[in-house]
Amino acid sequence: MSNSLEEWAERIFARDRRAMARAISAVESGEAGGIELLKLLFPKSGSAYVVGVTGSPGVGKSTLVEKLAAEYRAVGTTVGIVAVDPTSPFTGGAILGDRIRMQAVAVDEGVYIRSMATRGHLGGLAPAVQDVVTILDAAGCQVILVETVGVGQDEVEIARHADVTVLLLAPGMGDDVQTFKAGVLEIADVFVVNKADRPGADRVEQEVTAMLGLSERREGWNPPVLKTVATTGAGIAALREALDRFRAFGEQDLRRLLRRREQWRTCLMELLRQRLLEKALDALDEGALNARVEDILAQRRDPHTAAEELLSTFMSGKGKLAGK
Amino acid sequence: MSNSLEEWAERIFARDRRAMARAISAVESGEAGGIELLKLLFPKSGSAYVVGVTGSPGVGKSTLVEKLAAEYRAVGTTVGIVAVDPTSPFTGGAILGDRIRMQAVAVDEGVYIRSMATRGHLGGLAPAVQDVVTILDAAGCQVILVETVGVGQDEVEIARHADVTVLLLAPGMGDDVQTFKAGVLEIADVFVVNKADRPGADRVEQEVTAMLGLSERREGWNPPVLKTVATTGAGIAALREALDRFRAFGEQDLRRLLRRREQWRTCLMELLRQRLLEKALDALDEGALNARVEDILAQRRDPHTAAEELLSTFMSGKGKLAGK
Repeated sequence: MSNSLEEWAERIFARDRRAMARAISAVESGEAGGIELLKLLFPKSGSAYVVGVTGSPGVGKSTLVEKLAAEYRAVGTTVGIVAVDPTSPFTGGAILGDRIRMQAVAVDEGVYIRSMATRGHLGGLAPAVQDVVTILDAAGCQVILVETVGVGQDEVEIARHADVTVLLLAPGMGDDVQTFKAGVLEIADVFVVNKADRPGADRVEQEVTAMLGLSERREGWNPPVLKTVATTGAGIAALREALDRFRAFGEQDLRRLLRRREQWRTCLMELLRQRLLEKALDALDEGALNARVEDILAQRRDPHTAAEELLSTFMSGKGKLAGK
Repeated sequence: MSNSLEEWAERIFARDRRAMARAISAVESGEAGGIELLKLLFPKSGSAYVVGVTGSPGVGKSTLVEKLAAEYRAVGTTVGIVAVDPTSPFTGGAILGDRIRMQAVAVDEGVYIRSMATRGHLGGLAPAVQDVVTILDAAGCQVILVETVGVGQDEVEIARHADVTVLLLAPGMGDDVQTFKAGVLEIADVFVVNKADRPGADRVEQEVTAMLGLSERREGWNPPVLKTVATTGAGIAALREALDRFRAFGEQDLRRLLRRREQWRTCLMELLRQRLLEKALDALDEGALNARVEDILAQRRDPHTAAEELLSTFMSGKGKLAGK
């Protein structure tokens, strides 16, 4: 087993697509083998530039990600794409035409695309995304584009875990200003007004610029506000240049290190939480859990007391909890 | 302290708004007193009808919630509103005009409105929302409207925890079909096409109806597809009637009990996870955690190994972990 794990890792270092796909599936489904594999991959990771792309449904994230991938390919960079966006054509949330279009990048050997389910991750989505990024990174993807929907707590967390966070906006979405209020403004390093050929694009750009003027200056980096038309590719090269500038900026001093430190700290806490729950669930028997649920339903016990009781039995190390 | 806790609970049963506000703040900030209070409130809860209202930003959730609250007030029902939507005017994510408009319901003594932060809840958002619902329920709110953004894992979970889930759509949002793909279709009991006076409303209605025809029939309940214009109030009375019908339907047989059993089970697991993490964090010293983060940054250790090590030290009951 340990021998075959090492072979598996070697095949990933050699960018074998089937080995990569199998690794991601193993990690997603929480197989023990997947985690052991990650331990072998981790020392070879850490050099990819992770670009988080977030925004509301309908602003054109997937199209922009596709064009940005092609732009990186044009300068010889290998690209990984992780779509954790339930509305993305990569994850299946799109009409057929979009998916066919995506195949233009999908058939390029220098691009690896992977979608992830946004539900059912016991320990939250962010650590699962981190694991997939580690696999793509170890497989030599030089840039990894992570596409998420920018509404919802988990999704914002994922965007925050990237080396650079791009917030995509579009005119006529009706929720631009509202999105800012949700705190996304503070986490974006680069702003992009997509669909810039449509009426209202200038207004969106002005609003963003005005809001940036009001917000606290971030030491040394003024988040640029770019315009793109992802469908035609207009502005994509300038976006790549801005991302390169941010990367160079981040490598000054200890900035990137500080950011990664915070990210790994959050990731470690999340993993710890996940493992603890797994341990507790292993120790709980179904009967004990069900009995507590019936108590709550009958209002004999409140949920907090029930949780405390289950926990204290677990912590006292009695192993399997009694049925009642 | 126990005496004052009981007084506090009594004031909540008497619908004292300041006592309610203080309880919600205590619960939100995780004060120990808040949880003790919940234990006193819980036996008096359980009779409210919890209505989850979800949908993309911009479909008009807050306006609909406001009008629905007024509709319930018109038939003498007391209403609680919980906004866990970062784009809601209730939570502060709206332009001034919206907020002023909201004051029409806000000044009614029979309506209690509370917004919740969507971030920073250690144990996830869903149990925190459940706690706020318990407080409003114990205070005698007969109907509790929970407004969430229908994108993102946590938000969908919250909608699922209601007695009835309303999915709001609107023409011209561009993401209607995509939203369905994300699995929201399966959890909605009532569909509402808002902004029904705009072009495209009929098409949205037809799409939903067609999709419902394709999906598996739910035993005994065909989710209705209603049309509203929340700004004028058109269709709101019919929505309330549909909600009443669903409530009566749910009380047939054991349906409501089965649904609540599943909800409490999920809630209990989530609380258990939260408490476990708190315990682990108490036991961890900062030095140990920081040392592991530095190991990961230097790639001396992968995050999974680091989490396992922290966990096994915690489980072995050594209390405070050593600094390295």
